[in-house]
Amino acid sequence: MSLEGKQLIGNQAVLASGRAIHGINPATGETLEPGYPGGGQAEVERACELAWQAFDAYRETGPEQRASFLETIADEIEAIGDDLIVRAMAESGLPRARLEGERGRTCGQLRLFAQVVRAGEWLDVRIDPALPERQPLPRVDLRQRHIALGPVVVFGASNFPLAFSVAGGDTASALAAGCPVVVKAHSAHPGTSELVGRAIQAAVAKRDLPEGVFSLLYGSGREVGQALVADPRIKAVGFTGSRAGGTALMKTAQARPEPIPVYAEMSSINPVLLMPEALKARGAELGQGFVASLTMGAGQFCTNPGLVIAIKGPDLDAFLNAAAEAVRGAAAQTMLTPGIHDAYQSGVAGLAASDKANEVARGQQGTGPNQCQAGLFVAEAQDFLADEALQAEVFGSTSLVVACSSLDDMQQVAEHLEGQLTATLQMDDGDIDAARRLLPTLERRAGRVMVNGWPTGVEVCHAMVHGGPYPATSDARTTSVGSAAIYRFLRPVCYQNLPQALLPEALRDGNPQGVSRLVDGKREA
Amino acid sequence: MSLEGKQLIGNQAVLASGRAIHGINPATGETLEPGYPGGGQAEVERACELAWQAFDAYRETGPEQRASFLETIADEIEAIGDDLIVRAMAESGLPRARLEGERGRTCGQLRLFAQVVRAGEWLDVRIDPALPERQPLPRVDLRQRHIALGPVVVFGASNFPLAFSVAGGDTASALAAGCPVVVKAHSAHPGTSELVGRAIQAAVAKRDLPEGVFSLLYGSGREVGQALVADPRIKAVGFTGSRAGGTALMKTAQARPEPIPVYAEMSSINPVLLMPEALKARGAELGQGFVASLTMGAGQFCTNPGLVIAIKGPDLDAFLNAAAEAVRGAAAQTMLTPGIHDAYQSGVAGLAASDKANEVARGQQGTGPNQCQAGLFVAEAQDFLADEALQAEVFGSTSLVVACSSLDDMQQVAEHLEGQLTATLQMDDGDIDAARRLLPTLERRAGRVMVNGWPTGVEVCHAMVHGGPYPATSDARTTSVGSAAIYRFLRPVCYQNLPQALLPEALRDGNPQGVSRLVDGKREA
Repeated sequence: MSLEGKQLIGNQAVLASGRAIHGINPATGETLEPGYPGGGQAEVERACELAWQAFDAYRETGPEQRASFLETIADEIEAIGDDLIVRAMAESGLPRARLEGERGRTCGQLRLFAQVVRAGEWLDVRIDPALPERQPLPRVDLRQRHIALGPVVVFGASNFPLAFSVAGGDTASALAAGCPVVVKAHSAHPGTSELVGRAIQAAVAKRDLPEGVFSLLYGSGREVGQALVADPRIKAVGFTGSRAGGTALMKTAQARPEPIPVYAEMSSINPVLLMPEALKARGAELGQGFVASLTMGAGQFCTNPGLVIAIKGPDLDAFLNAAAEAVRGAAAQTMLTPGIHDAYQSGVAGLAASDKANEVARGQQGTGPNQCQAGLFVAEAQDFLADEALQAEVFGSTSLVVACSSLDDMQQVAEHLEGQLTATLQMDDGDIDAARRLLPTLERRAGRVMVNGWPTGVEVCHAMVHGGPYPATSDARTTSVGSAAIYRFLRPVCYQNLPQALLPEALRDGNPQGVSRLVDGKREA
Repeated sequence: MSLEGKQLIGNQAVLASGRAIHGINPATGETLEPGYPGGGQAEVERACELAWQAFDAYRETGPEQRASFLETIADEIEAIGDDLIVRAMAESGLPRARLEGERGRTCGQLRLFAQVVRAGEWLDVRIDPALPERQPLPRVDLRQRHIALGPVVVFGASNFPLAFSVAGGDTASALAAGCPVVVKAHSAHPGTSELVGRAIQAAVAKRDLPEGVFSLLYGSGREVGQALVADPRIKAVGFTGSRAGGTALMKTAQARPEPIPVYAEMSSINPVLLMPEALKARGAELGQGFVASLTMGAGQFCTNPGLVIAIKGPDLDAFLNAAAEAVRGAAAQTMLTPGIHDAYQSGVAGLAASDKANEVARGQQGTGPNQCQAGLFVAEAQDFLADEALQAEVFGSTSLVVACSSLDDMQQVAEHLEGQLTATLQMDDGDIDAARRLLPTLERRAGRVMVNGWPTGVEVCHAMVHGGPYPATSDARTTSVGSAAIYRFLRPVCYQNLPQALLPEALRDGNPQGVSRLVDGKREA
């Protein structure tokens, strides 16, 4: 498939006139063709207008039509074949196996949301039947369902060119909810974005949906991105990226005449707490497992373990020795973009320059451009508590070990943390009482609490929470991974005393869609 | 019970030192004793610290303990007896029957949330069991529940001194969710607030809960209110009041280092659409019913019908004639406060001065202070569309009829509206096709759509939505009335691979709490 460098707006491909965006192969520094001239106000206007026009029809598509649309997107992405993997490798520096896995995850995610749409739990149907004889006042017939919020802007993420970009989790959950989507492509992988965008365009046509259900724009975040978030026809925003980027979108969204929700997944250092018995029993093994998680994908995961909390002593030394050895053996890996590599270098330099953090080990130096050298540092608990800078995320495979004097110290460090996506306990049976004391803190601080695993690797399922208190995300009430992500794009509407002919099908007598309903507060499965 | 004029902080009653707040009897202008010296930073600090200390213990109370606490609050409020009604009448000017009904609603609401807590739907339990044999990768055990957000600030509302104040819907739903609550009393009914606050204080003690579960502060919104919203230990805000007040709280909440959700129910004019066949068949009857809804409680309801949309002609004239006669016969009623009365007078004066709105009728003039004279005005659709000022809420019993030329005109007017709590269709069988075309617009614009009723009167049940797009509320994804209001104060947490002994009880194998669970995406009732 040849790439055209155009904006995909509704069923059209349009050549814009702004400064051209080029992918850059981070492994070679090579500039990739074609250029994608950036869009501007005209493209934003057209995409938002089409999305708005499509909204009422799309949000009322039946479960089967909407589900098969999501499945068709997955089919169309698979139909691109190896071209997609080759282009994504060139634009991201990520290895083939990782991208093939990510494609599988992307298509699996779309198909999961198709199941979710069909099951209808997301409608949250509630029926309180009329009670005409009730004293002192009768009750009228009241029914509730959820409807789509409106057109959604999704920002592609640099670190998941497939699973959190054009047809990624935000897009899949917004489309599942009944929201048209306008994607702002991440400038790091424009060609990958075009390929996936054309797959969605094809699926829209195949399923006879209004063209405005999907558009894909290229341009700068400051111009096109902000203009999209400010547009009155846009009703929600999905974003995965930096804290600076996410908070800028939050500001714009709040300053609108009608403020809208922003779901920004931003910053997390994912603390790992090594409990005393586990550390004693398997310190060296934990050190190796930890570094495997730390260096996976050059550490470019939101759930990368950037912080270890443990009590100092010979058991921690065993962990540190094993981890140091693993770090020293860790090969340099190409990072996603020159910008991310620069930010990583400056983050590590900041740790190295701090008189509070001591270097434990560095990984192998790279030979090519944009390569990430792994790093491990250690700091004392009281220094960590006194210096907020030690808590800043270093995006990449560098981590900080906080050496504590006691379990109380560990708790204090955990309590001091900002909001996190994950918190991990490495523990054995003998640690269970101590772990129980820590749990309330970890629950308050993180969206996902895990035992004896590593935070990298996020299962796409119903119980997943990829979310957490600020600044992990802008909205702790939500998840951006898993089926519950659909709830971000819905709002409840109550229908009072509507004749059956006017009621949405899901709310009619006899439950024609066969969905789970709460009737008079009681669950009818 | 004698009133002391003190702040209720945890289990203490504390005399503050700020400027004293006095209730004023709006029917007489009389200043009521005692004065309530306003609190300041010291009281805010103490209440927030106690709430924070109580949080972890309170949010893990079992369903039975928390439910019986809510029921005890209702019992204690009833035990105050007539003193509560007498004081609330003096502070609000509302009649006895209305306040007795409101007390019933308040206690009913608390008992409904007790049932909700016991039923456990709010936990939204999801379990994805481990799949150790899955290829290419096994799945770990993943379980999700919802936990309380943290301490919540609730602002008492002027227009529901019981049902939306100290122990009103926001407090009941936050306590049900497991959040300690700090109430900022509305300055219009300090004595009523003290009586109810002491009832909650007594219930906290009777149920052996940590004292910080509840505090009640008096003071200015600009000082005490803003300081509470800015406090880092506060994690959400419930508010019912003016648009200016709500947006000020939203700004403060967003400007915090950790932004928090604000649930502000602010401004709604609750359009009523008179469909042609209904208007033809029963125009005069509709005019009478409309004015009964408009003048109920001096129009001081969030759901007061402030806008009527219909096609002009003899059928609308019949409606207007009947409505005008009813308005002219409407007795003057005492408004809640001098400030609300002033705002009403100025809102009506604005309509009267507009060359776009024509007076149809005015109600009877009052003889006492702070009395509200009902009003009905009419404007042409094109003038309404051209002048945003005509869309401003006039809080009180004045409404505007928008005269349209066609159904398309009606649709355009509806489409032009800001977000609303409610939208009402008055329709007959012959209107069903026209109503169906309007429905998508009404759904997008309002939280509750009703047929052949009037918007005043909000049932407290499971299917209710008292919410809607901005500026009706600050967060269209929620409701502030009904059992779903509990979801405002919860966030999901995922537990990965936790041993049974560490898992929250609701997530353990065997479902010991007997709650509805989503297992592998399938509902188990």
